[in-house]
Amino acid sequence: MTTGRLYGLGIGPGDPELVTLKALRLLRAAPVVAYPAPDCGDSFARRIVAEWLDQGQREIRVRFPMRPGKPPAAIYDAAARELGAVLDAGDDVACLCQGDPLFYGSFAGILTRLAAHYPVTVVPGVSSLTACAAAAVLPIVQRDDTLSVIPATLPETELARRLAEIDAAAIIKLGRHFPKLRRVLSVLGLFDGAIYVERASLPNQRIAALATVDPASVPYFATVLVRRSGHGRPGHGE
Amino acid sequence: MTTGRLYGLGIGPGDPELVTLKALRLLRAAPVVAYPAPDCGDSFARRIVAEWLDQGQREIRVRFPMRPGKPPAAIYDAAARELGAVLDAGDDVACLCQGDPLFYGSFAGILTRLAAHYPVTVVPGVSSLTACAAAAVLPIVQRDDTLSVIPATLPETELARRLAEIDAAAIIKLGRHFPKLRRVLSVLGLFDGAIYVERASLPNQRIAALATVDPASVPYFATVLVRRSGHGRPGHGE
Repeated sequence: MTTGRLYGLGIGPGDPELVTLKALRLLRAAPVVAYPAPDCGDSFARRIVAEWLDQGQREIRVRFPMRPGKPPAAIYDAAARELGAVLDAGDDVACLCQGDPLFYGSFAGILTRLAAHYPVTVVPGVSSLTACAAAAVLPIVQRDDTLSVIPATLPETELARRLAEIDAAAIIKLGRHFPKLRRVLSVLGLFDGAIYVERASLPNQRIAALATVDPASVPYFATVLVRRSGHGRPGHGE
Repeated sequence: MTTGRLYGLGIGPGDPELVTLKALRLLRAAPVVAYPAPDCGDSFARRIVAEWLDQGQREIRVRFPMRPGKPPAAIYDAAARELGAVLDAGDDVACLCQGDPLFYGSFAGILTRLAAHYPVTVVPGVSSLTACAAAAVLPIVQRDDTLSVIPATLPETELARRLAEIDAAAIIKLGRHFPKLRRVLSVLGLFDGAIYVERASLPNQRIAALATVDPASVPYFATVLVRRSGHGRPGHGE
């Protein structure tokens, strides 16, 4: 008997209109849809595509503890077993991935456990990185610039070492690491030109200078965009 | 009189199905569509969305010399004047941007010239970066990894300095710089684990180990994905 196919569908940063035609087609065609969900409450990934989940598809909530850090391998093992059973029965499974499936995020943990056993298709999505740049209308990288994507979860010395070398950077996974990041950017003279972006593409998105951000209010999924030479305001020449 | 609005529409890496619902809606609604085009021949951006350009919209070809390097400022100045005249007349202009509008690419040069004078909306798109990872089914970055996007156009010593520091990297803009990149990756012990991706998402996409790639055949828009620890084959655990 033929097994089902595992789909990793990038569904973009949050605005349902930033879903691609391909992800939408495959989502609607899959008999089983899986998505990460917190222990209790809503799944953000499901909410993005909720209007299209009207086909009576089977839904599998993969419960991740929504704490920063690495989810225990046991959670991935259990999720892979559950999805594997569906695939063994011959049904395709569409895994919903906020942003892009392979740009950070939890799909990699599923993929590494199942890819040797089942056919896999990954559909790339709009990542939070480019969604943040678009929200801020900032050309984050041009020409021969190097771009660094740096998690704020790194130790302070490592964060400083990486940021000292950048042309342009997106610093992700902020949350409680925001005060540390602010210190590092100040020491490096990068504080004033940095832009804070929260909930890019959603109706309540926020774009702000770093100095105006209350550290107590910063969610884990916020991003800071910074350039060595500062962010030239659009319209002031290249 | 109200001016028109400038739209930068990310239309993804090449597969027309990787266009977002939002880009498609705005593309079809705009009375004027602009896109980069070579001096002679087809525009790749136009080709991606050709099936939807059936509304009798006015089209503006922005002619860029398709040579590597920085297009002369005069080209951007002329393009901004032409688009500015349309906006002054009250019409919206949709600029088609292959991949994402603000992730490298030529839209930044238009944006910086027009953003002070006209309302602007940027719609992020699927970038070549995540399209390459999806094509290769490689989790390019996970957890606390840093990701570096590095143009191969950099001088060899600079390229080596940057690549010596990576967790994971996408090296872009290859073309004639490929032999230089190969040397650098070999010296750093990164050659064997590196993956070459060409025309990601198109029917003729190619994914290959670096050793099998003929340097004479490498286009400018090809990408190499590399990890410090090598690319674990999916299915062999995290």
